[in-house]
Amino acid sequence: MSGSLVVVGTGPGKAELMTPASQAALARATDLVGYGPYLDRVPVRSDQCRHASDNRVELDRARLALSLASAGRQVAVVSGGDPGVFAMAAAIFEAVESGDPAWRGLDIRVEPGVTAMLAAAAEVGAPLGGDFCAISLSDNLKAWTTVERRLKAAAEADFVIALYNPASKARPHQLGQAFELLRTVKAAATPVLFVRAAGTAEAEVITTTLGAADPSRADMRTLVIIGASTTRQVGRWVYTPRSERGAP
Amino acid sequence: MSGSLVVVGTGPGKAELMTPASQAALARATDLVGYGPYLDRVPVRSDQCRHASDNRVELDRARLALSLASAGRQVAVVSGGDPGVFAMAAAIFEAVESGDPAWRGLDIRVEPGVTAMLAAAAEVGAPLGGDFCAISLSDNLKAWTTVERRLKAAAEADFVIALYNPASKARPHQLGQAFELLRTVKAAATPVLFVRAAGTAEAEVITTTLGAADPSRADMRTLVIIGASTTRQVGRWVYTPRSERGAP
Repeated sequence: MSGSLVVVGTGPGKAELMTPASQAALARATDLVGYGPYLDRVPVRSDQCRHASDNRVELDRARLALSLASAGRQVAVVSGGDPGVFAMAAAIFEAVESGDPAWRGLDIRVEPGVTAMLAAAAEVGAPLGGDFCAISLSDNLKAWTTVERRLKAAAEADFVIALYNPASKARPHQLGQAFELLRTVKAAATPVLFVRAAGTAEAEVITTTLGAADPSRADMRTLVIIGASTTRQVGRWVYTPRSERGAP
Repeated sequence: MSGSLVVVGTGPGKAELMTPASQAALARATDLVGYGPYLDRVPVRSDQCRHASDNRVELDRARLALSLASAGRQVAVVSGGDPGVFAMAAAIFEAVESGDPAWRGLDIRVEPGVTAMLAAAAEVGAPLGGDFCAISLSDNLKAWTTVERRLKAAAEADFVIALYNPASKARPHQLGQAFELLRTVKAAATPVLFVRAAGTAEAEVITTTLGAADPSRADMRTLVIIGASTTRQVGRWVYTPRSERGAP
């Protein structure tokens, strides 16, 4: 039997937010490859091999998964959220491009999932109701000047902005720098949302403004959303009207 | 018993891509409100009232749903994809803002789902592997000059661009105009993907370049993705490396 590789997203956390297609893909696998905390979301089964790894070794993990698949195993690479958004799918194709030419003939699929910004938005209303963008604040793989250029362009064109990886122990100052930059373009009253552990039972929301936003409130599990000029609060919800002319 | 309203996304189409949380929310409802083709994805049950409507009356549909909930019904508003992305959730909060003040006290929730661009990306590899933005090309609710400003900003800052609503019978020329504008900023060799009916059994992918992209290949069921400068093809897949320096 020939091998295969599927990249699966477990969604934001709760089992009820993982698609049945992803659950079925995990159930068919002989081997699960992934970062430990994501693998922990998948029930242990004695007939499946689990290959847990550290978070900082995406490319090694991708190569291991591809090697297993080319040896005939049915491999599921387990990612959080949607595997195509700041997660494992891109790393798999990087490894294909730079690796054994035979890997290009493998049966490789990606299963879509609920990415963090969608779960975060749902916790607070509909802040992504207009045009929006998603930016990872991590500068492990790109220059900080690139992040700044994208933040500025997104603010000037009045996109709603979702920030992934807003802060980590190694990068405590970048979110503050991002807020400073955004304040030069966007109004101080612009709604800002810190959504921690969205789509889990521990979800927590802080609703504030760009003028008052305290970057120390974000950690690795936080998704930050900065509104467009039309984003507003109604009751306990925050949303962006579909029309640029504002609410009807 | 007091009423409630939940906005549910059915995902891109296949039942296996709807989350169990969304399925449970639909199962609990006494009333389903939505655009006919989305309601058709939900199995008929004799103890549920179905309120199907046309596609162009989001705000009327939102008000009907809120009225039913305030009359004590358990209402599910059925949307495609993720309800917070160019779908019904924003319309619900618009209706809350402009409607009966009592609606602000209702139990309103949003269930996240798999939005079209994630399903489209998964069909072809990982084109959203870097920073990206989502723009609706419809100018029903915003000026075309706003769309152009956002396209230009996104191209200049080298975002991957996902275009929702790229074409309809009423708007046949806008995608061509968008490509023309993008060609003034981005290289002709930039990968462009037309993904039709992503996340359904009829999914079809056209992989082309910005220089060669034919706007007439898009219809209402198509999601168009325009790559960043690093987006590339490997084997039969298209992906965007995580690093702005390109693939390893």
